Amino acid sequence: MIPAMKAAFLAVGSELLGVDRLDTNSLAATALLERYGVELKYKAVAGDSVADIERELLGMVSCCDVVLVSGGLGPTADDVTREAVAAAFDRETREDAAVVANIREMFHRMGWVMPEVNRRQAMVIEGAQLIPNPQGTAPGQLLRADGAAVFLLPGVPRELKAMLREFVEPWLQSNTCGQVRETQVLKVAGVPESELEERITAAYEEFGRENVTVLAKPGDITLRFTATGEADTRQPRLAAMARRLRELVGEAVYSDRDEALEAAVGRELIEHGASVATAESCTGGLVAERLTRVAGSSAFFEGALVVYSNRLKTALAGVPEALLVAHGAVSEETAEALARGAREGLGTDYGIGVTGIAGPGGGSEEKPVGTVHIAVAGPRGGKSRKFRFPGDRELVRWQSSQAALEMLRRQLLQGHE
Amino acid sequence: MIPAMKAAFLAVGSELLGVDRLDTNSLAATALLERYGVELKYKAVAGDSVADIERELLGMVSCCDVVLVSGGLGPTADDVTREAVAAAFDRETREDAAVVANIREMFHRMGWVMPEVNRRQAMVIEGAQLIPNPQGTAPGQLLRADGAAVFLLPGVPRELKAMLREFVEPWLQSNTCGQVRETQVLKVAGVPESELEERITAAYEEFGRENVTVLAKPGDITLRFTATGEADTRQPRLAAMARRLRELVGEAVYSDRDEALEAAVGRELIEHGASVATAESCTGGLVAERLTRVAGSSAFFEGALVVYSNRLKTALAGVPEALLVAHGAVSEETAEALARGAREGLGTDYGIGVTGIAGPGGGSEEKPVGTVHIAVAGPRGGKSRKFRFPGDRELVRWQSSQAALEMLRRQLLQGHE
Repeated sequence: MIPAMKAAFLAVGSELLGVDRLDTNSLAATALLERYGVELKYKAVAGDSVADIERELLGMVSCCDVVLVSGGLGPTADDVTREAVAAAFDRETREDAAVVANIREMFHRMGWVMPEVNRRQAMVIEGAQLIPNPQGTAPGQLLRADGAAVFLLPGVPRELKAMLREFVEPWLQSNTCGQVRETQVLKVAGVPESELEERITAAYEEFGRENVTVLAKPGDITLRFTATGEADTRQPRLAAMARRLRELVGEAVYSDRDEALEAAVGRELIEHGASVATAESCTGGLVAERLTRVAGSSAFFEGALVVYSNRLKTALAGVPEALLVAHGAVSEETAEALARGAREGLGTDYGIGVTGIAGPGGGSEEKPVGTVHIAVAGPRGGKSRKFRFPGDRELVRWQSSQAALEMLRRQLLQGHE
Repeated sequence: MIPAMKAAFLAVGSELLGVDRLDTNSLAATALLERYGVELKYKAVAGDSVADIERELLGMVSCCDVVLVSGGLGPTADDVTREAVAAAFDRETREDAAVVANIREMFHRMGWVMPEVNRRQAMVIEGAQLIPNPQGTAPGQLLRADGAAVFLLPGVPRELKAMLREFVEPWLQSNTCGQVRETQVLKVAGVPESELEERITAAYEEFGRENVTVLAKPGDITLRFTATGEADTRQPRLAAMARRLRELVGEAVYSDRDEALEAAVGRELIEHGASVATAESCTGGLVAERLTRVAGSSAFFEGALVVYSNRLKTALAGVPEALLVAHGAVSEETAEALARGAREGLGTDYGIGVTGIAGPGGGSEEKPVGTVHIAVAGPRGGKSRKFRFPGDRELVRWQSSQAALEMLRRQLLQGHE
C-alpha cells in the first residue's frame, strides 16, 4: 500500500490573527484532502509578513507532500505571498505579459482601466505553473519545492473553492491512488448521544470505528460514515452502511442529508398534505420561525400564535382561565390546550403547544428552569411530553423547538403506517 | 519605547484538523495578548503527534517571546504535549508527587478512584513552573526555553480561560510595560456600512485609523475603538472617543455594549414602560422570537401573531380582505394594517407589522425577492418603510427583523423627546 500523502495548510492574512475572524478556508481544503485520503498534518495562520510566511512554509515542506497556501495574492503592498514563496525557495519572479493582458482585459470588460498596482498579481515564480482563476484577477500558482507540491491560492473563499474544485481536485485525482474517500450522513433527533452510541455499537464493529463518527449538538446528532475505494465498491458499501445504521437507530433518523430538522418535517408535512400551526409560550415563536425557514413553507404553514402571557393564552389560544389556575401555565394540561387551541383556532391538521421555563428566572423547586411541556394535537388525537432541558435560556428554547418538531415528525410517521 | 513582545499560539488536537471543528481558544488568547500590546505573529494547529508539535514549537520560539500551547494535557496516550515540549527543548520529565496527590483527591471528592492513567497529568517538565487549574485535573506548566516563555494550557475552553485570567494575565502585567490596550464598542443599526464610514471619517483622523475599526454584518455594525496607556489616561480617552463617535454616528447607535439589538430594544421598552406585539408574515415569528430572547421579556412582551397566509392576516390580525385585494399582501397598506392589528388586537402600546418576499420563490418584476414592507404603530401614530434587502431567504428575514426592531427603537426614542 502506498503511504498516504501528507498535507499542510497555510492561511495568510494579518486580519486572520485578530479576535474577530477565523480562517475557514482550511475546512474546504480539508474536506477535499480527506476525500482523496490525504492527511492534513497541520495548519497555520501567518500575517502579511515575508519572514513569517517563509518560515512557516519551510517547516511545511520539510514534512509534507502537499502545501496549500491561501491569501496574499492581491494587488496591494501587503499581499506578499508571492515574494515570500520566492524567497523561501530561492527563486526569481518575473512579470508574465499574458497575465497582465488578461487582468487588463478583465478591468476593461467592466469599463475600468487596470490600476498599475495590479501588475503585482502577474508576478510568476520561477518554475511555477499558473492556475487559472475564473472568478477573480489573481491567478494561482503551483510549484515543486523541496519535494513538495506548493499551491498558491487566493484567500477569497469563492475564488479558492472554485480553484480547489477545478484545479486541485484533478491534480489530486492523478497524484493519489484514486481511492476516493466518500462520506455520507444521517441526521438524528430525539435520542441522547449516549443512547445513540449504544445503539450503533454493532456498526462500529462491522464497519470499523474510524469509519463511523457521531457529532452531537443538544437535541441534534449528525452520524457520519465513510467508505473508501473505487465508485463501484464504495457506493454499495455506503448504501449498506446507511441501511444498517437506520436499522440500528430506528425512526429517530430524520434525514439522510445534512439538513436541519425543520426541512425534514416540512417535507413530511407536504407528503401527507398536512398543515400545522403552533401556540408557543417559552419558545416565543421559534418553532414557527424554524418551520418558515423552509422555502415553500406556505404549503403547510399558515400561521402561529405566540402567547407569552396568561391573558393571551386565554384570549388567543382559548386556554380556559380555570385550567391555568388549576394546573399553572407550565403544565401538561396547558400544553395540550395550546396545541388544541392552535389546531382548532387556526384550522390546521396539526397543532403544537409549547410552555415552559426557559430561565434564567422563573424556576422553582417543583418546576426548575428547563422544565418544558410540549404537546402535539392531530386528527387522531394528541400526545404530550414533559422535558427537563439542561443549559441556558437560548439552549432550553432551542431544545424545546427541536423536541416539538421531532414530536410532530413522529406523529406524522405514525399516521403513515 | 520598548519593542512590543511577539507571541505565537499553538492548538494541539487531531480533532481540530478535521472538517467540523475550528480552534477558537486562540481568540480568547488573542484578546488577552492584544490587551497587553503583545503582537500575535502566527498561530497553528497540530495533531496529537510529538514530531509535529515539536517542529511547530521550535519554529515558534525562534521568533516569539511568548508561546501559548493549548491542549494535549489530558491523561490518555494521545495527549502528548508534555512529551513533545520535553523533546523539543531536550528536558527530562518527572512525576510530581504533590500533583498526583491533588488529582487523586479531586477524584476522591467525587466518590471515584483515580485511574492510574491520570498519573500522566502529573508529569512535570524539568525547570517548569506549575500553573494551577482550578477547573480540572490537568495543571498547566510555564517554562523558559530558547529565550521564550512557553505556557502549556489545557484545551477545554473553560479551563483555558480561567488560567488565562488567573495566571497568564498577571504574568503579562508584570512582564510588559503595563501599557494596557483597552477596547470598547458601539453597536449601530439602520445605517449601511459605507455611510457609516463616511460619517466617522473625522474620527479616523482625530484618533488614528488603527484605533477605530468597523465590523459590518448585514443590518448590524460593531464600531470598535481602542486606547492604550495607564488607566487614568486610557479611560478618559475612551470616554472621549465614545462621545465623539456617538456625535458623528447619531441615533443609529443602539448600544455601548457588545449586545444584540433586541437587548437594547427590550431595555428601551422597559424604560418607557411600554409593551409591543408583532404581526409577522415573511419573518414567520422571528421578530417575536428575538424579542423573547431577552431574559425578562414578559415585562414588555405578551405575544404575537404569525400570519403567513392571507386568510390568517384577515382572521387573526384583522387586515380587511378588500385591502389585501386592492394592494396585495406585500404592500405598505398591509404592513400598516398588520401593525395596527397587532397593537389593537393584542392590546399593546406598540405594534409591528412585517410583510415581504423572502424568496427564493414568489418574486416578480414589480416586487422582487427582498421586497419587504415594515410598519410600526404606536400611541402617537405610525410609520412604515419599504425595503429591498439583498441576499438569500435567511438573510432577507434577518435584515427584516433587524429593521423592524430598529424602527421600533427609533419610535421609542422620539417618544422620549
